[in-house]
Amino acid sequence: MRVAVDAMGGDNAPHSVVEGAAMALSSGAIRTEQLLLVGPHDRLDATLRDHGLSDVEICPATEVVGMDESPTAAIRTKKDSSIARGVAAVAEGKADAFVSAGNTGAVVAAASLILGRLPGVARPGIAVPVPTRKGPCVVIDVGANIYCKPDHMFQYAVMAAEYSRGALDRTDPRVGLLNIGEEDGKGNPLIQSVHGLLQTAPLNYAGFIEGQDIMSGAVDVVVCEGFVGNVILKVAEGLSAFMKDSLSSALAVHPPRPEVREAIGDAFTKLDYAEYGGAPLLGVAAPVLIGHGRSTGHAMMNMIRAAVAAVEHDINQHIVDLLAASRKRAEA
Amino acid sequence: MRVAVDAMGGDNAPHSVVEGAAMALSSGAIRTEQLLLVGPHDRLDATLRDHGLSDVEICPATEVVGMDESPTAAIRTKKDSSIARGVAAVAEGKADAFVSAGNTGAVVAAASLILGRLPGVARPGIAVPVPTRKGPCVVIDVGANIYCKPDHMFQYAVMAAEYSRGALDRTDPRVGLLNIGEEDGKGNPLIQSVHGLLQTAPLNYAGFIEGQDIMSGAVDVVVCEGFVGNVILKVAEGLSAFMKDSLSSALAVHPPRPEVREAIGDAFTKLDYAEYGGAPLLGVAAPVLIGHGRSTGHAMMNMIRAAVAAVEHDINQHIVDLLAASRKRAEA
Repeated sequence: MRVAVDAMGGDNAPHSVVEGAAMALSSGAIRTEQLLLVGPHDRLDATLRDHGLSDVEICPATEVVGMDESPTAAIRTKKDSSIARGVAAVAEGKADAFVSAGNTGAVVAAASLILGRLPGVARPGIAVPVPTRKGPCVVIDVGANIYCKPDHMFQYAVMAAEYSRGALDRTDPRVGLLNIGEEDGKGNPLIQSVHGLLQTAPLNYAGFIEGQDIMSGAVDVVVCEGFVGNVILKVAEGLSAFMKDSLSSALAVHPPRPEVREAIGDAFTKLDYAEYGGAPLLGVAAPVLIGHGRSTGHAMMNMIRAAVAAVEHDINQHIVDLLAASRKRAEA
Repeated sequence: MRVAVDAMGGDNAPHSVVEGAAMALSSGAIRTEQLLLVGPHDRLDATLRDHGLSDVEICPATEVVGMDESPTAAIRTKKDSSIARGVAAVAEGKADAFVSAGNTGAVVAAASLILGRLPGVARPGIAVPVPTRKGPCVVIDVGANIYCKPDHMFQYAVMAAEYSRGALDRTDPRVGLLNIGEEDGKGNPLIQSVHGLLQTAPLNYAGFIEGQDIMSGAVDVVVCEGFVGNVILKVAEGLSAFMKDSLSSALAVHPPRPEVREAIGDAFTKLDYAEYGGAPLLGVAAPVLIGHGRSTGHAMMNMIRAAVAAVEHDINQHIVDLLAASRKRAEA
């Protein structure tokens, strides 16, 4: 088992990535020979030495895709980027999973093109584990697919449930369908179709869920259209930042004791989904995890840990089997 | 000028409503003879006396629509509800605007049925002023219309801009279209069509806006589909509650000084959109404002104030004129 890690992905790369790798190694989540760092030797050697990680193998890649670059252009022109090389390493069997906090669109494009889709999957989806009162809840799709059809969303439910089980240790994860009300007749025709499909699925389907109930942890998986998922994630991000700033201004006038300030800081960190092990791109032929651009070392460690869990629990094989079983059931 | 106020709407009615009316009167926002409280005499007389408001006229209504009642059933069966009577008072010319913190669906149904639509408006929309770093930003639609067509969303932009100007004192309000990216080609076909319409509109159109930028106050109006708007509002509500609780737990372990606690409470109250004067139902033939079920007296006062502004600035006439001008321009 081996995990390829994009050493150049994220705002603080390669420092944050190498730091995360060091944390993953010292926590025992992964062994040195199971790590493959992708990036240019000249930018990695010294950083690895600083962290006492000179034994970690480097997969060379001389180019870096910028966070704001056009994904399709980047994949077309930067053949030697850390993203392209990392995904290729997985495709060539040199690694079993890929982890990157780099340009999301470029990772999605490279993984879709180079790895291809899992058998039975129509469209890959991005799932984000968000913090709730009862642990992480996986929201899918958050933007890979803004032309969702009912069977795409059905597949998202199956894939995210398997991820929740395999990588987040949820037994029999509860699946909710995001809607604007909980009564049976609510929602648009897309939601109604998906509701019908999920009611007959081999899943622990809990029916509709409204936005305000996501954070209470009512379900372990929330299925929604890519446009909606992307927007709610960004609104949540904007709102958190706004709240943090409002609170900071208020506390600048009335400074709290250091331990109170620290408790407030910790409470906000707990709510930061960027800390929670990254977003799996589900439906491609190998586990791929995408981190927020501002991923810290701690977040990178969690992503590596999630990639290991995804490989060890063979999540993708479970997904393929479940989708095949669902198709058979539907045809019967 | 007269405002009919549903005295029985909201979780703490009639107390919170009468309190809000008293605050609006003492602040000079409205005069006694300009208020019409709608509800049962036997539940209002004593409360009004307690607040020294015995002079306020009561429009009798013996029934109350519950917050969780089916709107259509409520409108069909409860002909003497405070919502039905309040809207009817406006339709009969006894009042110029209606304000309620009651069952949203029932207010929308009653207003649409009894008042009808403004000339040129295809579908009414609910707009919610949300707090941002630069004052309130109006988000429309938040759930009245989950079958949005491009011209509905175009009309929402025009109506919300007029509301922002007339009721929230924004000169030349900037209008943004909610999307999952800022580049021209981003988004689904619906968004692309609306983008085309807005580019030629007599509006200060700022183009696409992403979810994380709403709270930074980048624009004064955000246009989105009803499903999306409803979901983001509810997610924001759930997230705020979760943050408040996480912070409370942290502060229970490290109790801050009273003035720090108060500063924290104030920071959260400032972010509570329920405090901001309610949500206008735009596109019906008279100003109608809908408050959150948990509206406080302060929120009710702000709603009454917004209703007065909407009437005094003749927002609806401006909307009709602007829509007619847009149609002429499109036909030319």
